Amino acid sequence: MKLAIYGYGNLGKGVECAACQADDIELTAIFTRRNPADVRPLTGVSVFPAADIEKYKDLIDVLVICGGSATDLPVMTPELAKSFNVIDSFDTHADIPKHFEKVDKAAKDNGNLAMISGGWDPGLFSINRLYASAVLPNGTDYTFWGRGVSQGHSDAIRRIDGVIDARQYTVPVPEAINKVRAGLNPTLTTREKHTRECYVVAKEGADRERIENEIKNMPKYFSDYDTTVTFITAEEMREKHSELPHGGSVIRNGKTGLNSEHNHVIEYSLKLDSNPEFTAGVLVAYARAIYKMHKRGETGCRTVFDVAPADLSPLSPEELRAHML
Amino acid sequence: MKLAIYGYGNLGKGVECAACQADDIELTAIFTRRNPADVRPLTGVSVFPAADIEKYKDLIDVLVICGGSATDLPVMTPELAKSFNVIDSFDTHADIPKHFEKVDKAAKDNGNLAMISGGWDPGLFSINRLYASAVLPNGTDYTFWGRGVSQGHSDAIRRIDGVIDARQYTVPVPEAINKVRAGLNPTLTTREKHTRECYVVAKEGADRERIENEIKNMPKYFSDYDTTVTFITAEEMREKHSELPHGGSVIRNGKTGLNSEHNHVIEYSLKLDSNPEFTAGVLVAYARAIYKMHKRGETGCRTVFDVAPADLSPLSPEELRAHML
Repeated sequence: MKLAIYGYGNLGKGVECAACQADDIELTAIFTRRNPADVRPLTGVSVFPAADIEKYKDLIDVLVICGGSATDLPVMTPELAKSFNVIDSFDTHADIPKHFEKVDKAAKDNGNLAMISGGWDPGLFSINRLYASAVLPNGTDYTFWGRGVSQGHSDAIRRIDGVIDARQYTVPVPEAINKVRAGLNPTLTTREKHTRECYVVAKEGADRERIENEIKNMPKYFSDYDTTVTFITAEEMREKHSELPHGGSVIRNGKTGLNSEHNHVIEYSLKLDSNPEFTAGVLVAYARAIYKMHKRGETGCRTVFDVAPADLSPLSPEELRAHML
Repeated sequence: MKLAIYGYGNLGKGVECAACQADDIELTAIFTRRNPADVRPLTGVSVFPAADIEKYKDLIDVLVICGGSATDLPVMTPELAKSFNVIDSFDTHADIPKHFEKVDKAAKDNGNLAMISGGWDPGLFSINRLYASAVLPNGTDYTFWGRGVSQGHSDAIRRIDGVIDARQYTVPVPEAINKVRAGLNPTLTTREKHTRECYVVAKEGADRERIENEIKNMPKYFSDYDTTVTFITAEEMREKHSELPHGGSVIRNGKTGLNSEHNHVIEYSLKLDSNPEFTAGVLVAYARAIYKMHKRGETGCRTVFDVAPADLSPLSPEELRAHML
């Protein structure tokens, strides 16, 4: 199976590394909107201009599109799904239905298979919400994120006047997660579930009090949370905050029995040293599934909900039943 | 969708309760090998003799077979798959390939769809092993069971001369599970992973030292574990050990990055007040999937690996994408 990468940032690099770990997958090309000569892949893979991608159809069984959800993917994925089997990690939850419709039409009209919103949330967290609610219909779902770096929140701080760099950690509140783990089925407000830790490098002479207030009162991003702001030097930022860890937990509290007399707790948790590399691992596994499903004649758009687990594995159905069931 | 139960023990009762929680599922009948007059269902559902099941084909879209894996299911499931869409919870891991072949042939030859080995292990734990190994191919899987009652081990103790009743709890060793949760990728022996706690009611005058020794030295069941044996009264057994809690964790430690420089931990955990009721919830969700898949024309045998998550849910694909992705 020939895999190619479209867009070479943190996620693209992660896909490059993940492809190295899969014996059944050959990474054939990276496509970039930058000058290919300026792109230095981690491995010896060829780099081509994104504009020329139609020339390289023979190199591509599945194309992993590594763009941003805000402006890149809504355009790229439907366009590229006309020519290739594609997968993306579109993560703007509210816009998923619209994105799905566009990609589904483009892929179906051209005999291709696409998958959107691969990764861990949306992605592995989503299927765990689905499995848990199907198995325990009488219950409540909780999703906690972190401790980990939120790129969106870090970017929001960077846009404030006087800020040079910023890193925002989303942190689950231990009391809240412990109640949920104990199966107490609590009602939790936004503020009770997560806190936000911000590390900020400010310009010399900038008004730190104003910056701190602007962060803490930013609607949607911070005003509904208990937020702490810590000013640090550029050097500290480099030394202590250069990695992109993340993770979280999807937990369901549910009841069974004729009179709901028995409690159950299902928890799915991730602790990730590198958010982009883990997300890339998910994308490569689902790229394998898309390849298998397309070979069986499937076209159109899929999500993680539509993919049977067996299709993610390089093992045969017989091997899976014998060794993993 | 019309659901029927074949075999009315703890698991059958659990399925009866789980069916009550599903608005799209109607429990139509219980089939029993006992005298139907002696069976008192928790709800008002009709009870019929197992021998007459062929007369009730119109009542059954999917039949949940609630028998034991040792002698019941290897015979029942292939036989019933000739006439019905069926699902079982066959859990003898080593014999799954053979069971699968027999059920697959019976179902395929007669245009039916079957699923074997539903539940949580095999079942939800299996798909989590699969998802985790597909996403983090460079890694190690760990499965811990408990703290919970093992029926097989309890039965093994009950067969010892002088034992009236017994309950065996499988308990994960905290040091072992903590190392795995920390991503340390340890090598663990059987003894290092679990301990076994046995509560035994002995006959008056029985030789307790002999019973304790027979338990602790029983091959396969206890000799590879640190086992504790506590003698209790029949009253204590009733008061403190009448429930069937269970649970456990599937954890994968995996590495990503060009030089395996990043660690990741994926954990899937269950804490269950009632093992049979939770298992029943899994079976009912997969019965729904079998119903949908059969309507699409699928026949033969499936396992949890072959079922796309969306098919487990009563929600439509559009609803799932809008609200759960």
